[in-house]
Amino acid sequence: MKLDIALLAGDGIGPEVIDQAVKVCDAIAAKYKHEISWKPALTGAAAIDAVGEPYPDETHEVCASADAVLFGAIGHPRFDNDPSAKVRPEQGLLKMRQKLGLFANVRPTFTFPSLIDKSPLKRERIEGTDLIILRELTGGVYFGERGRKDDGNTAFDTMTYTRAEIQRLAKKGFEMAMNRSKRLCCVDKANVLESSRLWRETVQAMEKDYPEVEVSYEFVDAVAMRLVQWPKGYDVIITENLFGDILTDEASVISGSMGLMPSASVGEKTKLYEPIHGSYPQAAGKDIANPLATVLSAAMMFEDFGLQEEAEDIRRVVNKSLAEGIVTEDLSEDAKSYKTSEVGDWLAKNV
Amino acid sequence: MKLDIALLAGDGIGPEVIDQAVKVCDAIAAKYKHEISWKPALTGAAAIDAVGEPYPDETHEVCASADAVLFGAIGHPRFDNDPSAKVRPEQGLLKMRQKLGLFANVRPTFTFPSLIDKSPLKRERIEGTDLIILRELTGGVYFGERGRKDDGNTAFDTMTYTRAEIQRLAKKGFEMAMNRSKRLCCVDKANVLESSRLWRETVQAMEKDYPEVEVSYEFVDAVAMRLVQWPKGYDVIITENLFGDILTDEASVISGSMGLMPSASVGEKTKLYEPIHGSYPQAAGKDIANPLATVLSAAMMFEDFGLQEEAEDIRRVVNKSLAEGIVTEDLSEDAKSYKTSEVGDWLAKNV
Ligand SMILES: CC(C)[C@H](C(=O)O)[C@@H](O)C(=O)O
Ligand SMILES: CC(C)[C@H](C(=O)O)[C@@H](O)C(=O)O
Repeated sequence: MKLDIALLAGDGIGPEVIDQAVKVCDAIAAKYKHEISWKPALTGAAAIDAVGEPYPDETHEVCASADAVLFGAIGHPRFDNDPSAKVRPEQGLLKMRQKLGLFANVRPTFTFPSLIDKSPLKRERIEGTDLIILRELTGGVYFGERGRKDDGNTAFDTMTYTRAEIQRLAKKGFEMAMNRSKRLCCVDKANVLESSRLWRETVQAMEKDYPEVEVSYEFVDAVAMRLVQWPKGYDVIITENLFGDILTDEASVISGSMGLMPSASVGEKTKLYEPIHGSYPQAAGKDIANPLATVLSAAMMFEDFGLQEEAEDIRRVVNKSLAEGIVTEDLSEDAKSYKTSEVGDWLAKNV
Repeated sequence: MKLDIALLAGDGIGPEVIDQAVKVCDAIAAKYKHEISWKPALTGAAAIDAVGEPYPDETHEVCASADAVLFGAIGHPRFDNDPSAKVRPEQGLLKMRQKLGLFANVRPTFTFPSLIDKSPLKRERIEGTDLIILRELTGGVYFGERGRKDDGNTAFDTMTYTRAEIQRLAKKGFEMAMNRSKRLCCVDKANVLESSRLWRETVQAMEKDYPEVEVSYEFVDAVAMRLVQWPKGYDVIITENLFGDILTDEASVISGSMGLMPSASVGEKTKLYEPIHGSYPQAAGKDIANPLATVLSAAMMFEDFGLQEEAEDIRRVVNKSLAEGIVTEDLSEDAKSYKTSEVGDWLAKNV
C-alpha cells in the first residue's frame, strides 16, 4: 500500500513521541512492503511561533490531502493563565477538528495486565476493563456562539446540537456496539439540558434499527461516579463534546496506563491518530516521555487501513517491550529505564 | 435556641433518611435545651402527585420563612426516560435553588478511617483526603436560555455567568480557604469557554484581597483525572454549576463513604442541608437506606447556627455507630446489619 501520512508533531513532548512512532511505522512498512510518505506540517504553539497561527492553511492542505494524520500534542503553559491571549494553541486543535470534519473521537480504555497495579484503583475493580468512549468532537459548546455582554461583565457560551449531528455520532456508536458486546450507553444531562433531551430522543428513535443492541441512558454525573466504581460495567459510551472531554480523561486514569492510551478522531474523509496524554511540557526535550501511546495510535491507523496484521504486529512488539522492561521511567519499577528514543529504536528493531 | 426547620423529605429513600435525622435532632434539642419546630412540606415527584407541581408555592413559603431547610432527595425513574415529560421532579429542585437563592453548594469529601477499604481507590491514594468543592448553584447552563429551533431539530442551552455571580461564589471560596490550608483551586475550561475566561479573570482579580491564599487554575478535564489520581492534592475547589455537578459526584465515590457524605446549599438568607446520595429508588420503602449522610447534614446545620458542640456530638455518635457496627447493610461486613430506623433509634439514644 502507498500511504501519504500528514505528520503533526505539535508542542511539548509531541515531537519526541512522534519520532518513535515514525520509526516503528517505517519498520512496519519495510517488513510488509508498504510505502509511507511522511508529510510534516506545523501546528500548535510551534505554528504560532513560526507563522502566527496555530493551524495554518498550509497545514490544513497537507492534512486534507493525506490518507491519514498522525498527531503528537498541542498546548503550551505560556498561554494557559492569560485569559486575554488572542491566539491560543487550542484554537488550532478546534479549527483542525472542524475543518477536517473529525466528528467522532474514539477513546478506548483497557488494561495491560503487567500495569494494572499502577492504577489508583484496586485490581479487582479494573481487571478486564475494556470500554470505548465515542465523543462527539465538532459540535456542542465548543463550537456554539459565545461572547460578552454588559461591558464585558456577562459571558456566555452556547451548547447546540442538531439531530443530524447526533445521528451521525450515534450511528458509529451502534455499529461499534454491534462489533463488540452489543451494549451502548448514551450519556447526557437530559434532566436539565434541552440539547441532552434531543440526544436522548434521537438515540431512542434509532434503537429500532439495531434491535440487538441493548441501550441504556445515564446522566453524566452518575457516569462520573460509576466509571470509578465499576468501569467494567461499560462497553460503548456515546456522548456530546464537553461531557466526552471530561469522561475520557477521567477514564484514562483508571487503567493505570495513561501513557499508553491511543485515540482516533474520525470524519467522513480524514482520520487522525493521537496519543491522549497531551503535550506534557514539564518533560519536553528530556527524552523521557513514554512513546507507547503514539505507537499504539499508529496501530489503530493501520487497522483502519484494513492492515490488521500490521496493527497486531505493533501491539505484539509493544507488549514485548513491556514484558521485557524496555520502558521509559514512568513504567520502570527499578533503576533501569530507557530513553524515549531507545524505546523507539528497540520497538523498530523488533517488529 | 428556637429553630424553625422546613422539612422536605422528597422522593425515594428521602422520607426514611429524613425520619432518622429528625430523631437525632430532637434528641440533640432535648439534651441542649433547644426547641425545634419542624415544618414539613411537599417536594419532588411526591409534590407532583399531590398538587401537580414539584416545588409548590406553599412549600416555598415554608422554606423561605424557616431558619433552615433539611432536605431528603428528589427524583423518580418514571420521569427519566421520558424526554417529553412536561413536569419533572428536578425542575422543583432547580426552582427551589433559584427562588431560595442558594447560590453555593458546599460538598466536603473526607475519609472515615474505618471505611477506607470500601473505596474503589487504594488506601494510600485517599487516606487523609479532606477537600471541599464549592459548586455555583444558581447560574450557568442550568438557568440560561434554552430551546429548540428548525422544527425541533436543533436544540440549544446557554451557559451564562456574570462577574457578580462569580465574585459571590469565589468570595466564599477564598474565605473557606483562609480557614483551612489556604489553597484554592479554580476549575474551568478557559481554553475553550468564554464564561470560563470570565471566571478566571474574575478570580485572578480577587487574589490581591487574599494575599495568603495560594490560588491555582486547572481545566475541568485535568481535574477529573487528578481527583482520581491524587485527591489529597486538593483543598478548596471552586467551580461553575455543571462542572461542579460532575466533579462533586466523582469526588463522592473516592472516599468509599458515599452513603455518609453531607452537603449544604447556602444563600444570603436561607441554608439547605441535604445528603448527596439522591433518591435511590431501588431501596425506597425497604428500611435499608443508610441515614448517616442525612444525619451528618444535620450536623452541618447545627454548626452553621453556631452550635459547634451539638454538631460535634452528632459526629461523635455517628463515629461510635461506625465503630460498634450499628450500621445499615451497605456498611456491614458480616451478616449482622441494622435497619434504617434502628440506626436512627440507636443514634438518638446515644447522643
Ligand atoms: C485542549 C482542549 C481544547 C482539548 C478539548 O477540550 O477538546 C483537549 O482537552 C482534548 O480533549 O483534546
Ligand atoms: C437532579 C439534578 C438536576 C441535580 C443537578 O444536576 O444539580 C443533581 O444531580 C444534583 O447534583 O443535585
